Amino acid sequence: MATPEVDVRVPQAALSVRYADVRRHTEWLCEPLEPEDMTVSSMPDVSPTKWHLAHTSWFFETFVLAARDDAYASPNPRYAYLFNSYYVQAGERHCRAQRGLVTRPTVSEVFDYRRHVDEHMHALLESVDDDPVVTLGLHHEQQHQELILTDIEHVFWMNPLRPAYGSRLRTYDVESSDVPMPAWRAIRGGIYHIGHTGGGFAFDNELPSHRVLIEDFEIASRLVTNGEFLEFIEDGGYRRADLWLAAGLALVREQHREAPLYWERDDDGWSEFTLEGVRPLDPREPVCHVSYYEADAFARWAGCRLPTEEEWETAARLHPDLPDLFGARWQWTRSAYVAYPGYAPAGGALGEYNGKWMSDQWVLRGSSFATAPGHARTTYRNFFPSDTRWQFTGLRLAK
Amino acid sequence: MATPEVDVRVPQAALSVRYADVRRHTEWLCEPLEPEDMTVSSMPDVSPTKWHLAHTSWFFETFVLAARDDAYASPNPRYAYLFNSYYVQAGERHCRAQRGLVTRPTVSEVFDYRRHVDEHMHALLESVDDDPVVTLGLHHEQQHQELILTDIEHVFWMNPLRPAYGSRLRTYDVESSDVPMPAWRAIRGGIYHIGHTGGGFAFDNELPSHRVLIEDFEIASRLVTNGEFLEFIEDGGYRRADLWLAAGLALVREQHREAPLYWERDDDGWSEFTLEGVRPLDPREPVCHVSYYEADAFARWAGCRLPTEEEWETAARLHPDLPDLFGARWQWTRSAYVAYPGYAPAGGALGEYNGKWMSDQWVLRGSSFATAPGHARTTYRNFFPSDTRWQFTGLRLAK
Amino acid sequence: MATPEVDVRVPQAALSVRYADVRRHTEWLCEPLEPEDMTVSSMPDVSPTKWHLAHTSWFFETFVLAARDDAYASPNPRYAYLFNSYYVQAGERHCRAQRGLVTRPTVSEVFDYRRHVDEHMHALLESVDDDPVVTLGLHHEQQHQELILTDIEHVFWMNPLRPAYGSRLRTYDVESSDVPMPAWRAIRGGIYHIGHTGGGFAFDNELPSHRVLIEDFEIASRLVTNGEFLEFIEDGGYRRADLWLAAGLALVREQHREAPLYWERDDDGWSEFTLEGVRPLDPREPVCHVSYYEADAFARWAGCRLPTEEEWETAARLHPDLPDLFGARWQWTRSAYVAYPGYAPAGGALGEYNGKWMSDQWVLRGSSFATAPGHARTTYRNFFPSDTRWQFTGLRLAK
Amino acid sequence: MATPEVDVRVPQAALSVRYADVRRHTEWLCEPLEPEDMTVSSMPDVSPTKWHLAHTSWFFETFVLAARDDAYASPNPRYAYLFNSYYVQAGERHCRAQRGLVTRPTVSEVFDYRRHVDEHMHALLESVDDDPVVTLGLHHEQQHQELILTDIEHVFWMNPLRPAYGSRLRTYDVESSDVPMPAWRAIRGGIYHIGHTGGGFAFDNELPSHRVLIEDFEIASRLVTNGEFLEFIEDGGYRRADLWLAAGLALVREQHREAPLYWERDDDGWSEFTLEGVRPLDPREPVCHVSYYEADAFARWAGCRLPTEEEWETAARLHPDLPDLFGARWQWTRSAYVAYPGYAPAGGALGEYNGKWMSDQWVLRGSSFATAPGHARTTYRNFFPSDTRWQFTGLRLAK
Repeated sequence: MATPEVDVRVPQAALSVRYADVRRHTEWLCEPLEPEDMTVSSMPDVSPTKWHLAHTSWFFETFVLAARDDAYASPNPRYAYLFNSYYVQAGERHCRAQRGLVTRPTVSEVFDYRRHVDEHMHALLESVDDDPVVTLGLHHEQQHQELILTDIEHVFWMNPLRPAYGSRLRTYDVESSDVPMPAWRAIRGGIYHIGHTGGGFAFDNELPSHRVLIEDFEIASRLVTNGEFLEFIEDGGYRRADLWLAAGLALVREQHREAPLYWERDDDGWSEFTLEGVRPLDPREPVCHVSYYEADAFARWAGCRLPTEEEWETAARLHPDLPDLFGARWQWTRSAYVAYPGYAPAGGALGEYNGKWMSDQWVLRGSSFATAPGHARTTYRNFFPSDTRWQFTGLRLAK
Repeated sequence: MATPEVDVRVPQAALSVRYADVRRHTEWLCEPLEPEDMTVSSMPDVSPTKWHLAHTSWFFETFVLAARDDAYASPNPRYAYLFNSYYVQAGERHCRAQRGLVTRPTVSEVFDYRRHVDEHMHALLESVDDDPVVTLGLHHEQQHQELILTDIEHVFWMNPLRPAYGSRLRTYDVESSDVPMPAWRAIRGGIYHIGHTGGGFAFDNELPSHRVLIEDFEIASRLVTNGEFLEFIEDGGYRRADLWLAAGLALVREQHREAPLYWERDDDGWSEFTLEGVRPLDPREPVCHVSYYEADAFARWAGCRLPTEEEWETAARLHPDLPDLFGARWQWTRSAYVAYPGYAPAGGALGEYNGKWMSDQWVLRGSSFATAPGHARTTYRNFFPSDTRWQFTGLRLAK
Repeated sequence: MATPEVDVRVPQAALSVRYADVRRHTEWLCEPLEPEDMTVSSMPDVSPTKWHLAHTSWFFETFVLAARDDAYASPNPRYAYLFNSYYVQAGERHCRAQRGLVTRPTVSEVFDYRRHVDEHMHALLESVDDDPVVTLGLHHEQQHQELILTDIEHVFWMNPLRPAYGSRLRTYDVESSDVPMPAWRAIRGGIYHIGHTGGGFAFDNELPSHRVLIEDFEIASRLVTNGEFLEFIEDGGYRRADLWLAAGLALVREQHREAPLYWERDDDGWSEFTLEGVRPLDPREPVCHVSYYEADAFARWAGCRLPTEEEWETAARLHPDLPDLFGARWQWTRSAYVAYPGYAPAGGALGEYNGKWMSDQWVLRGSSFATAPGHARTTYRNFFPSDTRWQFTGLRLAK
Repeated sequence: MATPEVDVRVPQAALSVRYADVRRHTEWLCEPLEPEDMTVSSMPDVSPTKWHLAHTSWFFETFVLAARDDAYASPNPRYAYLFNSYYVQAGERHCRAQRGLVTRPTVSEVFDYRRHVDEHMHALLESVDDDPVVTLGLHHEQQHQELILTDIEHVFWMNPLRPAYGSRLRTYDVESSDVPMPAWRAIRGGIYHIGHTGGGFAFDNELPSHRVLIEDFEIASRLVTNGEFLEFIEDGGYRRADLWLAAGLALVREQHREAPLYWERDDDGWSEFTLEGVRPLDPREPVCHVSYYEADAFARWAGCRLPTEEEWETAARLHPDLPDLFGARWQWTRSAYVAYPGYAPAGGALGEYNGKWMSDQWVLRGSSFATAPGHARTTYRNFFPSDTRWQFTGLRLAK
């Protein structure tokens, strides 16, 4: 079973040590990849690995190094154009759809760029104990660590040869799990607080902490499994119009979908493409790569529903031992991603980090097996549009 | 000022009288139109007038006449295919995108179809005092009455000759209005109920009534006007990245938007295309034809925000004299359109009426000048996607 | 058998009589249509009937009436914008793709426009015996007469109710035909002239007459029939990659084509949608609604080829009794539509009539059952792109 | 001036030597490229370098090695799927649009594949003096050598950093040229033969040799230069509707074109992106990267026309000293790419090589600076669609 990970924090290491750790981890994730793998984008949502490597460095360069030292010189002033993702207030930027066409700088040159930024950052961090923008940059880089993995899985899946990333991350630790019978935890209704409080880092979208009214509800003690999702499929779940949101049904029919992303069926039954390559579907694992539409349809088929994000967070606070809250699959909630009451983004370009995405997305809670260690927390709000399937997304039922 | 319209109901006329009234009103709305006008669709969201005329009849035919009398015969069995909108459980249906290509049945034949249905309905209603499906059909037809108007305005606007529908509906009664200074009504926080209760008709998405926790807030005493929106434009509002949701900014830039839909600027200043044709922009009127993105950006520019739907409904209950709650413009809220806690759609095809649209849309509250008399109410939830502009949509600020 | 129609001409009636005849014939063709039918466009290639009615009038208005009389006033100056097809040098014009969205002027107003133009034209023609631009305008209107029919057939076919235009034109007169055995006419090679000479009207693309070198060839005595095309289908013709041009095969596979346009198969066998509605496929009729790709693939399957336009014209001159040269189906040739040596278009906007289309199209020769009486001739060059199927197109083999 | 290259051939080296030379030349062209460069596709027409490297090897593997030795084993049986381009009769193949998403096999593995094929080919060629399929494979690989260069230029141009391929190929040798005054060579009309005859290799589309009738014409003694094309631009050539084919004008307007591909204008005037990077436009060089539309419009502006392919070939036979027939720019002709009379493609998959592309393309004659040494000849027919601009295309006038 994945390690529960809540708000308990070990005393923080020095910022410079944390900086080195996070940066090193990003590069460790790239070790199994060839330069060719790190160059392409297999769909508009996917960025090339080397773009992630450069963009996270650009973040420190732009918001820390150049912001504080007029004399700072980038190795190439055009990198700001190539590696700005979406910060309109930070200047013009390259078209997202063309990221996968840019072969230079090469992977090797991007690693040079990282070293250049790291050297300047380490010089700066010698005299800095704590710094909110540097800390933000580290959490930002951790988000891209997970994206590197979701994106490369998609790149490999688009290849008819089905290459494997490798086994340095386990998608789920079924061996050590007894896969308990599904059970329900009841939560008494009342007025609770949700949102981040106290010390420690949080993204601005977790703020401010505020009161919510919750009615009595029950939440499942574990995530929905591949085996359960297979029952849904075998019961005709993808064909039953009454189970689906209209937009989801339209996609299912247009694209002839009949299973989660990366599932494949042949004469030997169902298999699943993963970072470790194609392998037989394990019915005990939590289902992965389902869209909001699929999560919602499954919940309706099961006679249940998805929890709201307020319910999820309250359950996680009250029952931190609930299995697989963290480290297994991101969990779709039925809460649209909107601002908390009183939400105020930061000024300037960094204010674009979370606030401008608050439309047409759903909140996901928890974290996945690919989330960086120490990154997630009970108040964390991940968010993706309804049809997102290439992320490590699953679901937990409520009623 | 538009007539406030809340939950006060006159004693209901007999169902057969109400049926006749609603059906007659639909046809009255079509009087200024030529057969050519009633045939085309000017964009995928727009349906031809004659499709609306037929579809509302198909609704009664399918869910009342054919459902209750096996001997009922449609004038043309293929009409069920042509005029089913989106009820998957009611059978195969024509592609929405091709509605505007179907020239037969002609307008005249569609009116024959209406008469056929009306005759059978009147025979049936002789012995029926009340009936939930018939009542639903009437509210359904009222919704299409407003769509006939929003759709024909778009059809006429796509014509370089800019024909006018005419003046049988006033977009706003500025003459009788003193256009009061903007003022704020304060609402004390607490636990309130929202959602429909008691007798009278409501759509299933207004149910069940439930408790909500609301914090102290203030809501504007009137809608945002054209004059105020013009200030936003002149202040560079459409060019300021910090004001916009990312998806809205992308649209503004790709499509070179700089004003609400139907606004046009020439050497004489701003004018506005309306059902009455092109006319100079009246700064005193409530702004119309703004998307959620524009409403949200304006609110941010004004240092305010949009109300939630819970706030709006509570304000409307507590202050039914708040101007322009109804009858002027639909009012965007910052609430995503999702199910109320405990929501349960009807079984069968009619369960598709509201529930399956609960993703990627926002709730609008109130009603517009084009909403059918008696149709809206305090608990009414209208809903459209973020970029909807061809509806009669405006906004009311909160803070 | 369709009437052979070659260059034999009766003495021409006065221009004013011919004008009246052509204009009246256009309106006669519209008699079976309702205003709704005449308003829509069912695909980008198709123009609404009322657009054809107005555009042909705009042609006379622009190139005759307004060109010769500064005092001439159009009933609506915006008509020039709406009804200019593609004459860039004649001013700005409406987007072709939106022709089917313009409901005003109504059909009735378009007929008023025709009468307005006709009155001015008749006044002008009182004193004019011959005039090349008026004559061009009449041949232009005859081309649109055929387009009215091809376009309305497509409009009706897009309607699931499959309405019929009616029987005022016979697609082929099988009754009076003995459907002779296929036979070959041999033509001796040599240097021939092709292109228009002598008196009488011709489009500029038929000029200048010039020498061509032709080798010995044989041409079929009749057109390929539905029955023969069915053999091709039943022999797997649509699935055999070796028979097809690459672009044609790609379309066949993407769009799952397995027959000419408008053919449909059910348990009772093949039927064909025509202007007369759906009817069983008659194996004796010449095949219709085949693209160049299909004509070319059929010819390859039959061990033959399509004739060049030089061969076709030479055969038609030498063997004017060859059946179905005219009046049955347009006949694809294997000649790309390019300028004759020494071709010089007219100056000004009328120079755009033919010359600017000389790329990516093929020449078709002959005429169809829907071609206006007196319109076609031996030197006539029709032209359409490779995938055109909504025209009345068939083929004649050569070897 | 580029080396004239006609049908004069040195005695051929042994096939195994020629095989080694051609294969080595391909790899020599790749030396300036990084693995990242060789992986991506910047538009649907462009294939990744490593795909070219593999596809040319697959050609030998499929049509020589596997065709003759049932025991031959590919290093990876899936390569046949990945590296078949368009030979439908040779089996299923990967989607062209996704070639640039396939990161494995890596560049290094593709070179391993080449070595594997080369070893088997060399073993086979030990005992083979001449072989038409091997020879075809070598000419095929030479075609891909030029495509490697046109494709990588486009890849680099899509990169905002504008990397350079390098200077191992000169786009034109202006230094050694006196850039003679434009002059005209007159050719007397008559019956000539065109098409391949005699020994030596030719593609099937150069066959059979046949008679053509040519009228008196004149052909320019050199290619149109950048300086002349600049005059066309400065004379408003891109804005004058009367100069353009309709489809070309539509593209010019939609895409705001005002110069050949890769031309850029800034305050210092015009520059040109080339394989050597961005450099100032040299008015003496032949214009490059013009579409058929641009070539045709320029010719019309100049009061001339493009030659037919028959005229070009006849001029090249009679005046082999005509400058820049070969080695500078491919020259658009006004001849559509269709089969020669009596053309018969090879049987089986190799019959797809040329024949199935005979629609909607124009013939280009000559060769470019990037054409492999020894590849082109007087009868050579290159072909591309009207809007092709990424090839090394220019024009020579006729009248």
